[in-house]
Amino acid sequence: MAAASDAYVVDAAPPAVQHKTLTVHTVHTTQFMDVTRLIEAAVQQAGLHSGVVTVQTRHTTTGILINEYEPLLLADFKALFERLAPARFDSAHDDFLRRTVNLTADERPNGHAHCRAALLRSSETVGVRQGLLDLGQWQRVIFVEFDGAQRCQLTLTMMGTPMPKR
Amino acid sequence: MAAASDAYVVDAAPPAVQHKTLTVHTVHTTQFMDVTRLIEAAVQQAGLHSGVVTVQTRHTTTGILINEYEPLLLADFKALFERLAPARFDSAHDDFLRRTVNLTADERPNGHAHCRAALLRSSETVGVRQGLLDLGQWQRVIFVEFDGAQRCQLTLTMMGTPMPKR
Amino acid sequence: MAAASDAYVVDAAPPAVQHKTLTVHTVHTTQFMDVTRLIEAAVQQAGLHSGVVTVQTRHTTTGILINEYEPLLLADFKALFERLAPARFDSAHDDFLRRTVNLTADERPNGHAHCRAALLRSSETVGVRQGLLDLGQWQRVIFVEFDGAQRCQLTLTMMGTPMPKR
Repeated sequence: MAAASDAYVVDAAPPAVQHKTLTVHTVHTTQFMDVTRLIEAAVQQAGLHSGVVTVQTRHTTTGILINEYEPLLLADFKALFERLAPARFDSAHDDFLRRTVNLTADERPNGHAHCRAALLRSSETVGVRQGLLDLGQWQRVIFVEFDGAQRCQLTLTMMGTPMPKR
Repeated sequence: MAAASDAYVVDAAPPAVQHKTLTVHTVHTTQFMDVTRLIEAAVQQAGLHSGVVTVQTRHTTTGILINEYEPLLLADFKALFERLAPARFDSAHDDFLRRTVNLTADERPNGHAHCRAALLRSSETVGVRQGLLDLGQWQRVIFVEFDGAQRCQLTLTMMGTPMPKR
Repeated sequence: MAAASDAYVVDAAPPAVQHKTLTVHTVHTTQFMDVTRLIEAAVQQAGLHSGVVTVQTRHTTTGILINEYEPLLLADFKALFERLAPARFDSAHDDFLRRTVNLTADERPNGHAHCRAALLRSSETVGVRQGLLDLGQWQRVIFVEFDGAQRCQLTLTMMGTPMPKR
């Protein structure tokens, strides 16, 4: 339980703020999409050298998960969320005879998908060091969809210092 | 699974830091409180133009959830957390004959409320673009209480560039 | 449900970015480690006056939890995660006869540990005010291990304004 530390890395230049919206298309009801490379590309395109990138989903039946992207593990995750918030439960949100709020013409029963999303995060923040995402060996940033197929937007907010000019 | 992107929005002025504490009062044991407008108002009062706002709860039986604020869906969420961490479980934290740490005079059995809170976030970070919270159409920032009624504090940390002067 | 607010605290100096890696060693399979003091020490050593610190784990069977660090409550948390994602479930990730991706020589069955970690956060962001972590009375930053013993790295990204010079 002891703790050690490495040297500090200090960037003196004032950080700037950059925003970027990523659009992705899910094709399955439940889908795990590795968006790590999209985020890395955005960070590099933005010229961010040192700081953070916050990844947000803009949808309420989706979430952000940082974990290993191994196909059989994704099957385990799918089974986990199906067990914790089963599709065939008596969702009040899906009782269209009672419900009066936020009803749209193409409403579909998805109370369970909201419940699964509630167990994930809407945002995760990842450090950026020397232009690279500060992730561990097995970590990938995964966009999780529980009510696809749909067009989805992810928002990136990048704050930090720019790449040094050569 | 393809990805597209919009143009970058770059703010050159150095970001500043602002803090704000919001005090809210919960009145029910389990309560979902939409605090989106409080956060929006704080961001506007602070004059934040572009950056992020981090929303934190300062309480250990509460959490931050970004999802749809539809009354029947909130009933689904309540049922979900009651099912995953039932109130009538054999909580060690509530065994006041064994417990010796962090005991207060007005201690109440709330091990289940801590467990529910552990399944939510203590903080979420939301992008701010042109003075507005970068949320999707159905997304609201919800403060979730599992052991009310009580007086609660939420902390906002706002970082970014100020509104341009006119 | 009313809301009040305190005065704004504005720091005019431009924020800087600092990174720090903490190395910790877990000794139990499931372990809750209070890392609050390590983070506080890093913030003070970095001279951060006002801003945020983002705490990330770099491991996929671990998570960050901000809650009360009371020994019997930790037993409740342990029981909660063991119940929600039991060790003896039929994990596809642990089916080494089927699995072909990310297999290492010392692979151990830990699909359940990934599932538990998926219910926690990889990162939490905590405000820093006047050099101190902005946490509530009972809040501690807890590093949660579900597949120890192992050597682990936590990453801190600190952004904000420096301590005023005396």
